[in-house]
Amino acid sequence: MTIALYTKGWNQNQWLDRFRQMLPNHVIRSFDEIDDPENIRYAMVWKPEPGALALFPNLEVIFSLGAGVDFLLNDPDLPAVPVVRVVDTDLTNRMSEYVVLQCLLHHRRSLSYMRFQQAGIWMDREDAAAKEIRVGLLGLGVLGQDAAHKLSVMGYDVMGWSRSPKTLDGIRSFAGEHGLDDMLSQTDILVCLLPHTPETEGMLNLDLFKKLPRDGALGGPVLINAGRGKVQVERDIMEAMDEGLLIGASLDVFEEEPLRDGSPIWSHPNIILTPHNAAASSAGALTDYVVKQLKLHESGKPMESVVDRAVGY
Amino acid sequence: MTIALYTKGWNQNQWLDRFRQMLPNHVIRSFDEIDDPENIRYAMVWKPEPGALALFPNLEVIFSLGAGVDFLLNDPDLPAVPVVRVVDTDLTNRMSEYVVLQCLLHHRRSLSYMRFQQAGIWMDREDAAAKEIRVGLLGLGVLGQDAAHKLSVMGYDVMGWSRSPKTLDGIRSFAGEHGLDDMLSQTDILVCLLPHTPETEGMLNLDLFKKLPRDGALGGPVLINAGRGKVQVERDIMEAMDEGLLIGASLDVFEEEPLRDGSPIWSHPNIILTPHNAAASSAGALTDYVVKQLKLHESGKPMESVVDRAVGY
Repeated sequence: MTIALYTKGWNQNQWLDRFRQMLPNHVIRSFDEIDDPENIRYAMVWKPEPGALALFPNLEVIFSLGAGVDFLLNDPDLPAVPVVRVVDTDLTNRMSEYVVLQCLLHHRRSLSYMRFQQAGIWMDREDAAAKEIRVGLLGLGVLGQDAAHKLSVMGYDVMGWSRSPKTLDGIRSFAGEHGLDDMLSQTDILVCLLPHTPETEGMLNLDLFKKLPRDGALGGPVLINAGRGKVQVERDIMEAMDEGLLIGASLDVFEEEPLRDGSPIWSHPNIILTPHNAAASSAGALTDYVVKQLKLHESGKPMESVVDRAVGY
Repeated sequence: MTIALYTKGWNQNQWLDRFRQMLPNHVIRSFDEIDDPENIRYAMVWKPEPGALALFPNLEVIFSLGAGVDFLLNDPDLPAVPVVRVVDTDLTNRMSEYVVLQCLLHHRRSLSYMRFQQAGIWMDREDAAAKEIRVGLLGLGVLGQDAAHKLSVMGYDVMGWSRSPKTLDGIRSFAGEHGLDDMLSQTDILVCLLPHTPETEGMLNLDLFKKLPRDGALGGPVLINAGRGKVQVERDIMEAMDEGLLIGASLDVFEEEPLRDGSPIWSHPNIILTPHNAAASSAGALTDYVVKQLKLHESGKPMESVVDRAVGY
């Protein structure tokens, strides 16, 4: 029961130690230590090279060490075995922290007040109340539903859009292409939590921004993207900011990460950039979740959060 | 049934218009238009001069046009009639927006990330999860309870302190002098929503800051004051920041407002200053609330939120 581990950009030895402690009866090897690929039953991975997993002929399950699985589904040689992603409450809570924080930052105009502070200016302007601000969420999976609930508790007028219709307490929900336009036409703050799939690629573009109302309680629409960078078209975001189609943005993800030097996003006064850490799950919570799924599988029970390859998450 | 209106620093004509529309059967006059002080039954006021209300011999009720009443209770010539303050859900919601926003800003280290952004640096650091952060609220009245609930929904480990013991779902509550020290010894983010009374004046001082733990999940304590400026000692806040007794602060209120030019608070990199607008009630919500109380009084029913002068709120 050998497990192959690969954690691009993370401290791999720490991750080996963590999983070895939790799974003392398994052999766990990093990819470059493996000389018996036929013995590998499980792969626990974060962003391995395309084709790397195809080298294990007896693989049973692939565990993504995060919520995202686009790096796996984009691998043309991905073995036809179940792919499990991390859906833990720790990560969900962190994502909602980020979403609520960014909504409040734009709503309460913190960037303006910080600039007033820096300039030594005491100036107050009447802010809208949360209930006057319509937040539209793209994506109503586990993350979207939790964010919707918390935004709703904060008093926002919350809407959500998903591929298939959903009914959620206190949330106006929309589905499909027509539902999307309907929601966009009433959205003051657009929050994107969508995964990267062929359908969502480049979806946050100028055409979409033009559908947002310019007469809302904030004086114009705000974009928050904590989903995936490839869902946004950064050139279009900058153009929309220039033209007043957007008045602010919070971006945690980028077409290319790290965001390239020289991108105008770095220095835009009304864009808040974070380095893809909206919902960095703690190592402990992530390890616990993956080990739990592995144990479910080994005891013949169904795993949670097995990816539906047809929809991409 | 003449009403006297005084709104220091606000657009008084707008306020006269608003109340005249809502109360067409009452005569409403600004203080400087009154030549029949014996006919004044009600005063609706924001920060009149001390002694001004003593000029109305037949006054029945004083309505503060805000949540605070310290400006009234500090008036040695205040008539011995009921004082009603504004406790509306709009103001409560705005206060909780501010409290949740400031907790998230410090917890998610937004100031650091903004500085990284300005410097063009892509750098991620592992943040604590909300559940690892202990938020201690000073004041568990209407505002404190709402903030406690919303912080709790966001996942924080919430405690609250009040003069008299309270039992609240999911909140660890403390009371009295001993309870205060007990809560402080476990508080990572201290949120003050206390009114200004003789007991609270200068309470946020160096002695208190020394009681906060320096080994918490944020690497040191954070102070958020959205109560009253006279509850804090600004010199002590700066000293505590210098000595590492505090690692950050959000201040909405100040000993003297506007904050004086030259105060080191303006330029401190880890203090977020707002111009006493944490919970600026909307004019509409405020008018509605005051009119509702007036109508309760006139129909012989008890008013809500009559101030207990012995405790000061």
